[in-house]
Amino acid sequence: MRKPQLVRADGLPDRVTIYEVGPRDGLQNESAIVDVAVKAEFIRRLVDAGLTTVETTSFVHPKWVPQLADAAELLAALELPDAVRAPVLVPNERGLDRALAANVREIAIFASATETFAAKNLNSTLDDQFAMFTPTIQRALSAGLAVRGYVSMCYGDPWEGDVPIDQVVKVGARLVELGCHELSLGDTIGVATPGQVTALIEAFAAAGVGVGKLAVHFHDTYGQALANTLTALRAGVTTVDSSAGGLGGCPYAESATGNLATEDLIWQLDGLGIETGVDLDRLVAASVWMAGQLGKPPVSRVVQALAG
Amino acid sequence: MRKPQLVRADGLPDRVTIYEVGPRDGLQNESAIVDVAVKAEFIRRLVDAGLTTVETTSFVHPKWVPQLADAAELLAALELPDAVRAPVLVPNERGLDRALAANVREIAIFASATETFAAKNLNSTLDDQFAMFTPTIQRALSAGLAVRGYVSMCYGDPWEGDVPIDQVVKVGARLVELGCHELSLGDTIGVATPGQVTALIEAFAAAGVGVGKLAVHFHDTYGQALANTLTALRAGVTTVDSSAGGLGGCPYAESATGNLATEDLIWQLDGLGIETGVDLDRLVAASVWMAGQLGKPPVSRVVQALAG
Repeated sequence: MRKPQLVRADGLPDRVTIYEVGPRDGLQNESAIVDVAVKAEFIRRLVDAGLTTVETTSFVHPKWVPQLADAAELLAALELPDAVRAPVLVPNERGLDRALAANVREIAIFASATETFAAKNLNSTLDDQFAMFTPTIQRALSAGLAVRGYVSMCYGDPWEGDVPIDQVVKVGARLVELGCHELSLGDTIGVATPGQVTALIEAFAAAGVGVGKLAVHFHDTYGQALANTLTALRAGVTTVDSSAGGLGGCPYAESATGNLATEDLIWQLDGLGIETGVDLDRLVAASVWMAGQLGKPPVSRVVQALAG
Repeated sequence: MRKPQLVRADGLPDRVTIYEVGPRDGLQNESAIVDVAVKAEFIRRLVDAGLTTVETTSFVHPKWVPQLADAAELLAALELPDAVRAPVLVPNERGLDRALAANVREIAIFASATETFAAKNLNSTLDDQFAMFTPTIQRALSAGLAVRGYVSMCYGDPWEGDVPIDQVVKVGARLVELGCHELSLGDTIGVATPGQVTALIEAFAAAGVGVGKLAVHFHDTYGQALANTLTALRAGVTTVDSSAGGLGGCPYAESATGNLATEDLIWQLDGLGIETGVDLDRLVAASVWMAGQLGKPPVSRVVQALAG
């Protein structure tokens, strides 16, 4: 398969960690319910392609996300190398109990940066969401688990429009105080532009949350995901969330609202000589295989170009 | 309609000129043959949305591009304000004759940066293509026309793989020597990454072709177009080619090979507070109207998000 030409650029990191969200954030947003054996095989292929951090599933209540109702069964079926980080999303203490029972070593919790999304997604207020997170995080840390904090709607939300940067920083800084080792700054509706990205990273630094604790998580709803990611890399971020094949988005015109595709990101990073440890050809093959299982074409432009 | 939040960033231009290629490069790559009245109305709507430079059509032989066979008829039907620049593509002296007969004030010629594409597209060699361009450009300049030079396959071509940067600069510098006031550096197959973009702009500067003479023209085949455009803006480029609605690309998985969508670009520029003079809502409406004429959904993610 074709490779990008390698030409380095100044002001970028030497190495980037890809935090792969396809099996969780991707499959959660697919209409099909995928068999547990297919999920396990997909994750195995992703790891074989060189991904070292794969969010595998979520212990949210099956009523809300039936696509991931098989979380415990999936984790039992996985046999991953010790070096692979396989975090799972945990909404609350009940989810944590299930994660602990499944011998998970790393969890992620999902916070809102806006009141309206906190109300709609968590049935909570911005402040009160911490009443749910605090014991969850504390018990996870006591059990020796690493905890990542997602902050969603960082750059705008569907109801409130613009989101004050101080509000995002306040939510994120509080998660770090509670013990999150990393924040994933989510552009949940895909509206961000580069000035916002730089300003948010700088505001976190001013609040004592250094860039080493920040990951970025862009959605491509407005076609901005890769340019915003590049902007974050220039600001010193070295962990990027993405979804293999662009899983979770729709390849058709009506709703291309998915995560940044891992392959489109890797094409850029490979071209820039930024190490990820991922073999693009194997990753494309994994995404093509998964698309076949779902019976729909992949969203990723790189997968389309290389395997189309 | 939703607007991006305005947050400026350092190191970017205050103003960018959008060189709209939808009516020519876009429609040339659509399978449908569009009625001349529809084309004229589309261009009128683009100009009403604030676009000041619109490449309207091409005087290439109708045998090669039947979609634009009505070039003379279209130009006769257009009544554009004097301030609007409406260049047309001209492949050779025969095309120039037709452009002059249509009272065109500005033309663009289309050069290859690689031997194989010169052979396939122009039936020529890299050097010999200038035998065709030299009299065309000279006669155009004598007639008082401005001449833009496209350089295609600047970052890779389908047959030769990587393209030596010196070769691209040589072709481009020669076009400038012949009198082109602007070069449009085309990533015809969409493979470029940011290091290449910066390196090429710097190599042109070293050869005496300053950034003020450069425009960029990215295709989104590998999902890289907007990130590469942002990189070019950081390097000082202030003219960007794009296609309203992403016209010329395909919204389905198999071949999303079109130009950068103008709306996706404007979203980024509006968010950064970079002036373009374009009203995004009106532009989206124009692209939705054109998609209706073509009977297919628009490729642009912004159009999908705002009008979907």
